[in-house]
Amino acid sequence: MRLSRYFLPVLKENPSEAQIVSHRLMLRAGMIKQSAAGIYSWLPLGFKVLRKIENIVHEEQQRAGHIPMLMPTLQPADLWKESGRYDAYGPEMLRIKDRQDRDMLYGPTNEEMITDIFRSHVGSYKDLPLTLYHIQWKFRDEIRPRFGVMRGREFLMKDGYNFDLTKEDALHAYNRHLVSYLRSYERMGLQAIPMRADSGPIGGDDTHEFLVLADTGESEVFYDSEITDLKFGDREIDFDSVDQCQAVLEEFTSRYARTDETHDADLFAQVPADRQRTARGIEVGQIFYFGTKYSEAMGATVQGPDGKSTPVHMGSHGIGVSRLLGAIIEASHDDKGIIWPEGVTPFHVGIVNLKQGDEEADAACQALYDSITALGLDPLYDDRNERAGGKFATMDLIGLPWRITVGPRGLKNGVVELTSRKTGESEEMTPEAAVEKVAAIYRAIA
Amino acid sequence: MRLSRYFLPVLKENPSEAQIVSHRLMLRAGMIKQSAAGIYSWLPLGFKVLRKIENIVHEEQQRAGHIPMLMPTLQPADLWKESGRYDAYGPEMLRIKDRQDRDMLYGPTNEEMITDIFRSHVGSYKDLPLTLYHIQWKFRDEIRPRFGVMRGREFLMKDGYNFDLTKEDALHAYNRHLVSYLRSYERMGLQAIPMRADSGPIGGDDTHEFLVLADTGESEVFYDSEITDLKFGDREIDFDSVDQCQAVLEEFTSRYARTDETHDADLFAQVPADRQRTARGIEVGQIFYFGTKYSEAMGATVQGPDGKSTPVHMGSHGIGVSRLLGAIIEASHDDKGIIWPEGVTPFHVGIVNLKQGDEEADAACQALYDSITALGLDPLYDDRNERAGGKFATMDLIGLPWRITVGPRGLKNGVVELTSRKTGESEEMTPEAAVEKVAAIYRAIA
Repeated sequence: MRLSRYFLPVLKENPSEAQIVSHRLMLRAGMIKQSAAGIYSWLPLGFKVLRKIENIVHEEQQRAGHIPMLMPTLQPADLWKESGRYDAYGPEMLRIKDRQDRDMLYGPTNEEMITDIFRSHVGSYKDLPLTLYHIQWKFRDEIRPRFGVMRGREFLMKDGYNFDLTKEDALHAYNRHLVSYLRSYERMGLQAIPMRADSGPIGGDDTHEFLVLADTGESEVFYDSEITDLKFGDREIDFDSVDQCQAVLEEFTSRYARTDETHDADLFAQVPADRQRTARGIEVGQIFYFGTKYSEAMGATVQGPDGKSTPVHMGSHGIGVSRLLGAIIEASHDDKGIIWPEGVTPFHVGIVNLKQGDEEADAACQALYDSITALGLDPLYDDRNERAGGKFATMDLIGLPWRITVGPRGLKNGVVELTSRKTGESEEMTPEAAVEKVAAIYRAIA
Repeated sequence: MRLSRYFLPVLKENPSEAQIVSHRLMLRAGMIKQSAAGIYSWLPLGFKVLRKIENIVHEEQQRAGHIPMLMPTLQPADLWKESGRYDAYGPEMLRIKDRQDRDMLYGPTNEEMITDIFRSHVGSYKDLPLTLYHIQWKFRDEIRPRFGVMRGREFLMKDGYNFDLTKEDALHAYNRHLVSYLRSYERMGLQAIPMRADSGPIGGDDTHEFLVLADTGESEVFYDSEITDLKFGDREIDFDSVDQCQAVLEEFTSRYARTDETHDADLFAQVPADRQRTARGIEVGQIFYFGTKYSEAMGATVQGPDGKSTPVHMGSHGIGVSRLLGAIIEASHDDKGIIWPEGVTPFHVGIVNLKQGDEEADAACQALYDSITALGLDPLYDDRNERAGGKFATMDLIGLPWRITVGPRGLKNGVVELTSRKTGESEEMTPEAAVEKVAAIYRAIA
């Protein structure tokens, strides 16, 4: 993309309404625009990152064998009356009447609807295991929406639901989700730590939240420092293997890691003192085995191998897709702006022309642009008639991980400059070498 | 995908609520499930096709230089009060009050919101031309939703908006959209004919609807038969070239083609009698230049080269993404089921194992599956323990364009059978030849 043809309305001033850095930087980098309290338009740069995150989630869910579909945003109230949640859910549920005066709602989550789909179509244990998921806009009418996309009212979420014959099978589905979530977050450049969560009135131990450590997190977290050394990395895993998935669960959840909601001071005290850590965290996902709560209430049963009808064991598993943009920025920025991890960057590399209009510089930039594009990468070429300082400031603000700077002086020596956004380090090399280095970086994470 | 692990709830009976063939087939093929009147869940097979159509629209819009973004589903009423449409819009607009008693609505379209974004960020003609678009769920509270996704209440639409300094520039944007729409529909296997549309109270000639001919279409259409011979094909086009885009407009709109809303019997009579055609059509898109209607009402102005402030010339351009699934099926089916065009098929090829459990047949199917997948194609392997007749019926119903049938008898002679869904013709060949033939078909449209 040539910047002169793009729509990137960066702001020079710090927007006064933004209290936290990610909100501030998303506004300043022209990624979002608020249209109502807690409701945002995703401007082109923001939309690009949102799509990248969405794609990673899709790929990792499907790798785990989970099946994509899409449920609508509006739901009939009747389904929620069956489960008992229509009355139980507070004013966060946006209730709507259509022109026929039917009670509807803007879905804050989809347990009822997916259970209805399941019971309409599945009748035998032979069709299990089954995990369906979707990525769809949800609405929660927060009384005080704040922190930009971190606590918006209309938000994009991946929610998946497993259906299994037994608790044992459902716990394997739970573990499969845990593994797929670890992979997803790492691909986004995030460390998200699974922490024992509060299962609420349903009870049970089988729920974990995934938290990203960040000073601005809404939760206080307590953990054994050994946990931050864990990496899923690029190990191979067979998602059908109960043992392999169970081993990952044990590896990643056996050390102490809890939020203030489930914190147990006595247990925490058993962690060696030099490994006890307290910090703040942002919740970016949750997995939850809840058994037969919905299947019993809504009659989602299958015929088992013994011929008997039995309610299915279910769980629901969520990733906060739109909120992840805020979380990533909270975890990765400096005083100049955003620092995108390579896995989610809106453009792979920026090209800065120090002397727009100079024949040789223009030609060199165009050649770089063409060869980067030919490799299937997506460059952003700042071809505006602006001073170098302004161009650098924009690139730093929007946070592309790599920048190639092209100027007449370097070209005389046959070199351009390749700069890492993260370290700020620059290296002179031929244009071909710069392209090859950038290409190699992205090949490594493809 | 192995069918035994997929969620494909096909129906054996014809659903009684479906009046038209596309609705019936989408229900029978397990593509959608109604959750409320005019509101559907997209089951896995339906979602796959929806995503393919969405991707074609994204690719063709970006090829034309239009910039993707995303606006939210809910909008504040205030914006619509500025344009005057809050009161003008009838009961099709779903009006909502949030917990703070603020007036909101579920967007049926986005002229107001995009104009608000534009005026907040753009102040100079130097930032023009600009075309922004998004693909987002909309809601229109139809009094009688019917025909499945063809006339639903919650529907997915691509809507794009151009902002230009002059009428002339805006008409180039109009033409660019026309070209990109012709390309999009052809990639979906559709012929969609641009027909002079009714511009309503705004007036002006510059609006066309795109209609797909089908017996179940809601509009009566009148056209010169020469028009159905036109194809955009794979010609090269420079979307920046005013002349090239204008030439395409003239080629595709100079012959008589109108819906009942704009039909002019006298003009039609001038078409040679043997070329006069009357038929029915389904509207799948519309382009519309409306000048300064919204920019004047909402103060979306730019400073021109002369230093004077001037309202921008705009147009809005829509493609009915979810409705296209219905339109494609209406245009392409037979009494056995759907016949997907290759450009939008949910799976590229089906593999039918005639004797599941036979060692040789299982191995041959697996080998086919692996080599097709390795080519980046997406096969659906029917590995269920079902009789051949049932497997064929399912494949015919869900409409994959190509099927490879594998059985012990053929394998003795080293052959499998490749069958075209469209013609029903089968050919025996080696598994390698079948894979290569399928791969070549999809390479040709990639």
